[in-house]
Amino acid sequence: MDPHGNQLINGGSSAEGLEEFFGVNPTTGERLEPPVLEATQSEIDTAMALAVDAYWQLRDTAPSRRADLLDAIAAGIEGLGELLLERAELETALPQTRLQGERGRTCHQLRMFADVIREGSWVDARIDHGDPDRKPVPKPDVRRMLIPVGPVVVFGASNFPLAISVAGNDTVSAFAAGCPVVVKAHPNHPGTSELVGRVIQNAIGEMGLPAGMFSLIQGVTHGTGAALVQHPSAKAVGFTGSLRGGRAMFDLAAARPEPIPVYAEMGSINPVFMLPSALEGEGAAGVAAGLHKSLTTGVGQFCTNPGLVVALRGPDTSSFLSHLQSAVEESEPGTMLHAGIRFNYEEGLVRTRQVPGVEELVAGVPPSGGAEGDGRCQVRAALFTTSADVWLSNPTLSEEVFGPSTLVVQCEDLDEMLRVARNVNGQLTATVHGSTEDLRENQALLQCVEVTAGRVVINGYPTGVEICPSIQHGGPYPATTDARTTSMGSSAIQRFARLVCYQDLPDDLLPPALQEQNPGDLRRLVDGEWTR
Amino acid sequence: MDPHGNQLINGGSSAEGLEEFFGVNPTTGERLEPPVLEATQSEIDTAMALAVDAYWQLRDTAPSRRADLLDAIAAGIEGLGELLLERAELETALPQTRLQGERGRTCHQLRMFADVIREGSWVDARIDHGDPDRKPVPKPDVRRMLIPVGPVVVFGASNFPLAISVAGNDTVSAFAAGCPVVVKAHPNHPGTSELVGRVIQNAIGEMGLPAGMFSLIQGVTHGTGAALVQHPSAKAVGFTGSLRGGRAMFDLAAARPEPIPVYAEMGSINPVFMLPSALEGEGAAGVAAGLHKSLTTGVGQFCTNPGLVVALRGPDTSSFLSHLQSAVEESEPGTMLHAGIRFNYEEGLVRTRQVPGVEELVAGVPPSGGAEGDGRCQVRAALFTTSADVWLSNPTLSEEVFGPSTLVVQCEDLDEMLRVARNVNGQLTATVHGSTEDLRENQALLQCVEVTAGRVVINGYPTGVEICPSIQHGGPYPATTDARTTSMGSSAIQRFARLVCYQDLPDDLLPPALQEQNPGDLRRLVDGEWTR
Repeated sequence: MDPHGNQLINGGSSAEGLEEFFGVNPTTGERLEPPVLEATQSEIDTAMALAVDAYWQLRDTAPSRRADLLDAIAAGIEGLGELLLERAELETALPQTRLQGERGRTCHQLRMFADVIREGSWVDARIDHGDPDRKPVPKPDVRRMLIPVGPVVVFGASNFPLAISVAGNDTVSAFAAGCPVVVKAHPNHPGTSELVGRVIQNAIGEMGLPAGMFSLIQGVTHGTGAALVQHPSAKAVGFTGSLRGGRAMFDLAAARPEPIPVYAEMGSINPVFMLPSALEGEGAAGVAAGLHKSLTTGVGQFCTNPGLVVALRGPDTSSFLSHLQSAVEESEPGTMLHAGIRFNYEEGLVRTRQVPGVEELVAGVPPSGGAEGDGRCQVRAALFTTSADVWLSNPTLSEEVFGPSTLVVQCEDLDEMLRVARNVNGQLTATVHGSTEDLRENQALLQCVEVTAGRVVINGYPTGVEICPSIQHGGPYPATTDARTTSMGSSAIQRFARLVCYQDLPDDLLPPALQEQNPGDLRRLVDGEWTR
Repeated sequence: MDPHGNQLINGGSSAEGLEEFFGVNPTTGERLEPPVLEATQSEIDTAMALAVDAYWQLRDTAPSRRADLLDAIAAGIEGLGELLLERAELETALPQTRLQGERGRTCHQLRMFADVIREGSWVDARIDHGDPDRKPVPKPDVRRMLIPVGPVVVFGASNFPLAISVAGNDTVSAFAAGCPVVVKAHPNHPGTSELVGRVIQNAIGEMGLPAGMFSLIQGVTHGTGAALVQHPSAKAVGFTGSLRGGRAMFDLAAARPEPIPVYAEMGSINPVFMLPSALEGEGAAGVAAGLHKSLTTGVGQFCTNPGLVVALRGPDTSSFLSHLQSAVEESEPGTMLHAGIRFNYEEGLVRTRQVPGVEELVAGVPPSGGAEGDGRCQVRAALFTTSADVWLSNPTLSEEVFGPSTLVVQCEDLDEMLRVARNVNGQLTATVHGSTEDLRENQALLQCVEVTAGRVVINGYPTGVEICPSIQHGGPYPATTDARTTSMGSSAIQRFARLVCYQDLPDDLLPPALQEQNPGDLRRLVDGEWTR
């Protein structure tokens, strides 16, 4: 079951393309077989047309069959065993332990959404009974629920080749909502994408579901992704990646004759604010160790990586900084996901270093032996510090440096810290460290960060997203293009559904979720009361 | 308390502008005093800066105080009595009975949202308790809720000078969510807007809430509306009006450095499908009478006006058509809201009439005595018919003609009717008439219209929107720019809120909605179970 490098369409493979590209081993810089075909416009058209047909067929299919599909995909991914993890390591340089954990998260997400749709109440069913005797006009019977929006285009992310990729959070929440999905594979893990895609195809075939509900499109050019977003049959887009990439997809989608929503999860610097008590005495060493781990895990390639630390100038912060500096200096070099990410990381370090008033405590240069341009992707972690004044007057320091780099901003007092907080733009997360008393005395800071970020973390670290019903992974622009929604956790399903109401439709013609007898035993709002 | 024609900012009035315009009496074509000042950029900047300050103040204010405000605004509107209704009639030509009804709906909306925020569960609070002993990593305590997005810009609609205007559905749902609102008054009812705006100002002052939470901006140029949408402090936009206007605002908002959501409710032709049983025997006369009433009420100036009727060619439809034709011929002429709307209505009739194969059964020409261009806005209802073939090959017939005009498309068979249904673009509503047996036999049609429309009406008429928790007033583009949401009913509040979660925040620092003791007795999802 080696990858063949073709598109996955209509339950099989398609190889119309004439252009090809290769995955690259980021550790060695060597290209990986087989060559991968760039999808053609006609393959994209076929995939989208099949998705439309599948949409109509799925409207006639019991939700439990989609739940069974998600479970079967999880089992299929586990069934790939070492084959999948080895290919993923080859293409991404992520270590096996990390990939095992990510596979667990991917399968957990699949099974969580299977549970969500088996339970069924996510459709937010509401019923207002009619009253034919109401004056001056009779009251109609009105019933409302969520229905799937239509074919969804999903872009795999480079940094989570399993959990935010072909069978990742966007695909699984779209499937759960009842939408067909056309995935644009990330060009830096085409083989991993194909292996997972074939699992999905097999599971769909075995469950007797419409083959058109899933296609995998390979491509390395911007045009291939753009053609998917601009396709008239696409009704929504899920994306995780850079600000530039996400904004480009958002702009294309907004300019369509029929605009469609783009759920792009993009850059974030995830500020960490240190109240005075956080770094007192022994505290400084512990917080430095925790932050260092959060900063360097996965070679810093997380959207929730802490790229900004805000503290008060003084001996405690100096001690913290010296602990952090030692830890960063002693960090092993790591291999980034691909040459493009390494290039952008180094560019970000240069951009930061060039700001007057920024001091470079640890230079994240390539380790000796890895000459630039040879395709090898090793880097070191980097540490900078500066004053609040310098930070406030240089917006470039608010831009994400994707990778294991952080900037410690030293403020003269708490008012200045608050000023920094007010000038931070939209974030996935914001973290505050301090004693409960310190937090109580600095509620203005807490109020500020909750308006800036999607998730507020207290005395912890932003990396590591707990997948649960109350998680929020999202935030104001530029963290995402749609702060109203989350891309992780069970609420992510709502991105791919819209409300429809039925007025005076006979009971047996209503969707089961809205029928009087409530056959699925859903939690529903009936005449203003939540019932089951 | 006559209107003064100035902006309403900071609890008082502002008159910086040098340009002025006038409301016009659509019945006589005469201009109405006083002159109204076009807002300046500096007034807009002031209003938006005050809105930002008010946002922060509102974050510190108990929701019950916003509920009291909404009740006070409703009482204030009722307290204006005849003064308001007379001014509204003068500016819009809507009759007193209609305006009384609309005032009732406006105050109902205000009180409904007061109840929604007093009850409080709309914030969708979710709690997942932590587990410090979980392996391999401790589970954090995560809690999530909706918070207000920030200052909202609302555009008043011309056709509902009370219910979709200054204190209308968008303003009240934004206030309910905790957002300050800057309203752009519709230039065709500036006096009505100002009277209601002053009620809001007074109520805010009496309740001791921040004056900056409401401003009213007057203007007749596109630039004034654009400046509001493009203002960096605006975080969302509510709009009801034309497709051209709504799309323009959407495009401006999407092109901002920080894109913001635009909830634009725009055009719709609201198709009505007649299954064979609907027009059998006596049925034809009744349905013709019901449709005629829905078509001509309010001079057809509803977004839910039935502009397309789809039936099967044959004697029953001929009988229906002849009843409808008589009723339309006998309709009294009506006065439209303003000269622009009348102009567009006549242009729409010309566009329809010019399509080869379209037969004009009743010409909606101006009544005798109302020469074109004199500013008087009287029109007649219009009726057209054509074949499905002609309709399918002329996309111009899918464009909304805003006003009392409808087109009856005659199909050769049910397959052709289904083909028409599949080619209808996004709609606020779709209606199907027929016996339950007929509906059962035509489920493909039902499945088709539910994917096209926000609200499916059976054996009724699309005008008349029941305001209740299960109502959906929205639909796929071009009906709206955001089919995921509703602009009417209690769910409209969610448009102006976004999710935020708190990880390990001490209980007393959490918002009350997320505190362990649940002081507001909200319905919450706690560890996967809905509780109270």
